[in-house]
Amino acid sequence: MGITLARLAEQTGAELHQGEPDCEINAVATLQNAGAGDISFLANKGYRKYLSRTRASAVILAPEYAQECPAAALVSDNPYATYARVASLIAPRPPQQAGVHASASLAADCTVDASAWVGPHCIIESGAVIHPGVQLAGGCFIGAGSVIGAHSRLSANVVVCHGVQVGERVNIYPGAVIGSDGFGLANEDGRWLNVPQLGGVRIGNDVEVGANTTIDRGALDDTVLEEGVRLDNQIQVAHNVHIGAHTAIAGCVGISGSASIGRHCMIGGGAGIVGHLEITDNVTITGMTLVTKSITEPGVYSSGVPAQDNDSWNRNYARFRQLDRIARKVQALERHMDTTSARKNK
Amino acid sequence: MGITLARLAEQTGAELHQGEPDCEINAVATLQNAGAGDISFLANKGYRKYLSRTRASAVILAPEYAQECPAAALVSDNPYATYARVASLIAPRPPQQAGVHASASLAADCTVDASAWVGPHCIIESGAVIHPGVQLAGGCFIGAGSVIGAHSRLSANVVVCHGVQVGERVNIYPGAVIGSDGFGLANEDGRWLNVPQLGGVRIGNDVEVGANTTIDRGALDDTVLEEGVRLDNQIQVAHNVHIGAHTAIAGCVGISGSASIGRHCMIGGGAGIVGHLEITDNVTITGMTLVTKSITEPGVYSSGVPAQDNDSWNRNYARFRQLDRIARKVQALERHMDTTSARKNK
Amino acid sequence: MGITLARLAEQTGAELHQGEPDCEINAVATLQNAGAGDISFLANKGYRKYLSRTRASAVILAPEYAQECPAAALVSDNPYATYARVASLIAPRPPQQAGVHASASLAADCTVDASAWVGPHCIIESGAVIHPGVQLAGGCFIGAGSVIGAHSRLSANVVVCHGVQVGERVNIYPGAVIGSDGFGLANEDGRWLNVPQLGGVRIGNDVEVGANTTIDRGALDDTVLEEGVRLDNQIQVAHNVHIGAHTAIAGCVGISGSASIGRHCMIGGGAGIVGHLEITDNVTITGMTLVTKSITEPGVYSSGVPAQDNDSWNRNYARFRQLDRIARKVQALERHMDTTSARKNK
Repeated sequence: MGITLARLAEQTGAELHQGEPDCEINAVATLQNAGAGDISFLANKGYRKYLSRTRASAVILAPEYAQECPAAALVSDNPYATYARVASLIAPRPPQQAGVHASASLAADCTVDASAWVGPHCIIESGAVIHPGVQLAGGCFIGAGSVIGAHSRLSANVVVCHGVQVGERVNIYPGAVIGSDGFGLANEDGRWLNVPQLGGVRIGNDVEVGANTTIDRGALDDTVLEEGVRLDNQIQVAHNVHIGAHTAIAGCVGISGSASIGRHCMIGGGAGIVGHLEITDNVTITGMTLVTKSITEPGVYSSGVPAQDNDSWNRNYARFRQLDRIARKVQALERHMDTTSARKNK
Repeated sequence: MGITLARLAEQTGAELHQGEPDCEINAVATLQNAGAGDISFLANKGYRKYLSRTRASAVILAPEYAQECPAAALVSDNPYATYARVASLIAPRPPQQAGVHASASLAADCTVDASAWVGPHCIIESGAVIHPGVQLAGGCFIGAGSVIGAHSRLSANVVVCHGVQVGERVNIYPGAVIGSDGFGLANEDGRWLNVPQLGGVRIGNDVEVGANTTIDRGALDDTVLEEGVRLDNQIQVAHNVHIGAHTAIAGCVGISGSASIGRHCMIGGGAGIVGHLEITDNVTITGMTLVTKSITEPGVYSSGVPAQDNDSWNRNYARFRQLDRIARKVQALERHMDTTSARKNK
Repeated sequence: MGITLARLAEQTGAELHQGEPDCEINAVATLQNAGAGDISFLANKGYRKYLSRTRASAVILAPEYAQECPAAALVSDNPYATYARVASLIAPRPPQQAGVHASASLAADCTVDASAWVGPHCIIESGAVIHPGVQLAGGCFIGAGSVIGAHSRLSANVVVCHGVQVGERVNIYPGAVIGSDGFGLANEDGRWLNVPQLGGVRIGNDVEVGANTTIDRGALDDTVLEEGVRLDNQIQVAHNVHIGAHTAIAGCVGISGSASIGRHCMIGGGAGIVGHLEITDNVTITGMTLVTKSITEPGVYSSGVPAQDNDSWNRNYARFRQLDRIARKVQALERHMDTTSARKNK
C-alpha cells in the first residue's frame, strides 16, 4: 500500500533530486526515528544536524540541503507544505462512514444526507441540515435550524447551538461550543439584565475550531469566521467578533465582543484582544500580548513579558511601581544640568 | 404577532416621545440594519452617527437624543436596559418543553418535576432533584444528590457533579462543569497526594455560567456564587472561591482557591486572581490584570500591559530588565547633584 | 462507621500526643466548623488563630503546635499530607460499579474488563481496551485503539481520541479532551495546509487531568505526561509537549508545542510556555508568567505583573513606553557628570 517517490513528486510538485523513482514509501517519520520505507523532512534549521545520519528512505527538503542528504531527496521551496501534502497522501485517512447510529436522537423534521454519518448519542434538532459527507462523531449536538456544510467533520461532544451556519470541509474538535449566547448585560440599579442574543454564527469553508474552544452567537448581527481561519484549543471568541480569512489563532486567546480581526493575521497563545477595535490584515500578535487599541499598520505587536528569575523580577517590578517618579527625577536632573551648563557658559 | 409601541412603553416604563402608539413592532435590529417594523436602540455614543439615517420604526434612546430621532422615540434614562427588556418581549422565547426524553438515563430514586424537561441522552444520578420548569438540553449530567432549582436552563453537555445546589432561573451554557474536584494536593517526599474534595458548590438564583466554564467543589466548605452573578465563557473558579452577588466576570478569567470576591464587582477578560485574598465590593479589575493582594478600597485596578510595536516593546523591555540598576543610577546622580549644589552654596 | 484515633495514627504514621486512642472520628472539618467526632488540621499558619477555640475532637498538626491544641493532637511533620491520608480514610469513597450500562455504545471488537464500569451513553470505539476496575462515568468517548489503564476514573463527558495510552489510577475530570489533533499548519501562498497529526498521547500512572483541560496528540512522536503529573482545569497542552514526573500545573496554563518541562516543577495559574524550549527539574513558575526561553537552573521564575490602582498603573505604564528613552537620558546625565567631575578634578 506504499506510494512511490515518483508519484509523491508528481502529486506535490516537488522534484526528486536523487533516489529511485520506484522506491515505495509507507510512512512518515522524524529524521531521528525514520527507517527504511519512511519519508522524513527538514523544514527547521535546528534539525539539520540529524540529516546526515538519518536512515529515512527519502527526505523532503529545500534545494540548499539536497547535497547533504544521504537518502533520496524530494526537493521543494516550501518543504513543510510539501511534507503536509505527502503526509496527507501516506497517512491513513480518518474513517468515513455513512448512516445514522441507532442511538442518535433526530428531530422528525431535520435533514441528514444519506452520505453523512451521525454517530452514537448525537442529537439533531428541528430543521437542522446535515450536508453530504458530513461526519458527526459521538455525542454531538446540532441545534434547531443549524446547517453543517458538506464534508465537515465534528469530533466527539461538539455542541453547535441553534441557528449556526458551518461551511464545507470544516473541522471542529471535541468539546468545542459554537453559538452559545454572548455575554450581553445591561445594568439596572446594580442588577444585570440579560440582553437577548439574537444573532447567529457564520463559519466559512475550510475553517478549523480547536478542542474546547467557544464561539458565541451575535447579539443582533452574526459572529463571523471567514474561510480558512484556524483556531487552536481553548480560545474564546465573543459575540459579533469578525475574523478575516486565513487568520490563525493559537491556544487560550480571548477575543472580546465586536472585535474585528483582519485576514492573514497570526495571533500567539494567550493573547487578549479588547472589544470594539479593528486589527488590519497581516498583523502578527506575539504570545500573551494585550491589544487595547485598533492596529492599522501590518507588522508585529507585543506586550508579553518574558520571565526573569524571581529576585530580579521583584527588584525590577518594585521600581516599575516608582517609574513615573523616577522619570520625573530624570527630568529634574536634566533641567538642573541645563541650568548649570547654561550658567557656566555665561 | 407584533407588539405596539404603547405596550412596549407601558411594559418597560419608557416614555413614547413621538410616533404612533399603535405602531406594531416585530423585531429588534441595529440602527444601520433596521427597517419598517423594527425597533433599534442608541446606547453607545459611537453609534449616534447612524441615528439620523436609520429606517427603524422606533428607536430606544436617552432624552438628549430624542430631538435627532427620525422615527418614533422610546425615551429612557437607561436605554440599554430598556432595550434588553424590549428585546426580551419581542424576541422568540426559547422553546419550553416538559417530560423526559426516552433516551435519558435516570436513577430510580431521582426526582424530576412533571413540568421539567429532560432532553435526550441526559443522565440523572441517584437522589438528584429537578425542580419545576427546569430545562435540560441534551447530554447533560446531573450527579448524585444535586439539586437544580426551578426554571433553570442547562444547555447541551453541561456537567453538574454530585452534591451541587443550583438556584432558580440559573442559565448554564454548553460544556460548563460545576462541582469537579478542586486542585488540592499535599506534597510528600516529592509526590503529590490528593486531598479529598468534600465540599460542594452552591449557586444562587439568577446566576449565569458561560460555555466551558469550570467551577470546582470546595475542599471542606462549599464554593459559593451568590445571586445574580454573571460568568462568561472559559472561566476557572477554583475550590472555595466565594463570589458576591451581582458580580460580572468576563471570559478566560482564572480565580484561585479560597479567593473571596465582593458584590457588584466587574472583572475583565483574562484576569487572574491569586488564592486566599479578598476583594471588596464595587471593585473593577481591567483585562489581563493579575491580582496578588487583597483589595480593600472600591475602584479600578489594572496591570494588563497594552501592546506596542515589537521593536519598541523589545527596546523598552530590555530596559525593564535593568530597571533596578537604572533607578540606582538616578539616585546616585541625585546625590551627586545635591553634593555639588551644596558645595556651590557654601 | 467511625475510625479510632489509634487506627488513624497507625495508618498514617502520625503520633497521637494527647487524647483517647479509642475516640471515634466520623468526619473531617475546618478548625472553625469542626464539632464532636470531627478531626481537623492546622497546615497553614494563617489558621493558627482558630486552634485554641476549635471544638474538633482531634487536630492534625506539627509538633510545635501540639501544646496549644485543646483537643486530641495527631502530630506529624507534614500535617497537610497526613490530613490528606486521614481524609481519604474517613471520607466516603466514590462509588465503584462494574458492568456496562445498557445505553452505552460499544464497538464489537473493543475489550472491557468485567470489573470495569462503562456508564450511560459512553462510546467505545474499535480496538479500545478498558482495563480492570476502570470507571467511566456517563457520556465518555474512548476512541479507536485507546487504552485506559487499571483503576483509572473518567468523569462525565471526557473525550479520549484514538490511539491514546492512559496509565493506571489516572483521574480525568469532566469535559477534558485527550488526543485531539495538534495545531500543525504549513503556510502555502497565504493559505494554511493541515499537517497530519500522526502521533498519540501517553499518560503515565497516577496522573490527574482537570476539567475541560485539553492535551493534543503528537505530530509524529507522542505527547507525554510522566507518572504523577497533576494538571488543574482549563489547561492547554499542545502537541509533543513532554511533562516530567510529579510536576503540578495550575489552571489556565498554556503550553506550546514541543516544550519539555522537567520533573517536580510547579507552574502557577495562567502561565504561558513558548514552544520548543526546555525547563529543567524543580523549577517553579509563578502565576501569569510567560516563559520564552529554556530554563536550565532550578529556582523560581516570574513575570506576572501585580495590579495597581488604575491611575498609578496608567502613569507608570506611560513611562514604560518611554523607558528606553529614559535610560538613554540617564546614561547621558552620567556621562555629563563624569565629564564635569573630570574637569573639576583637573
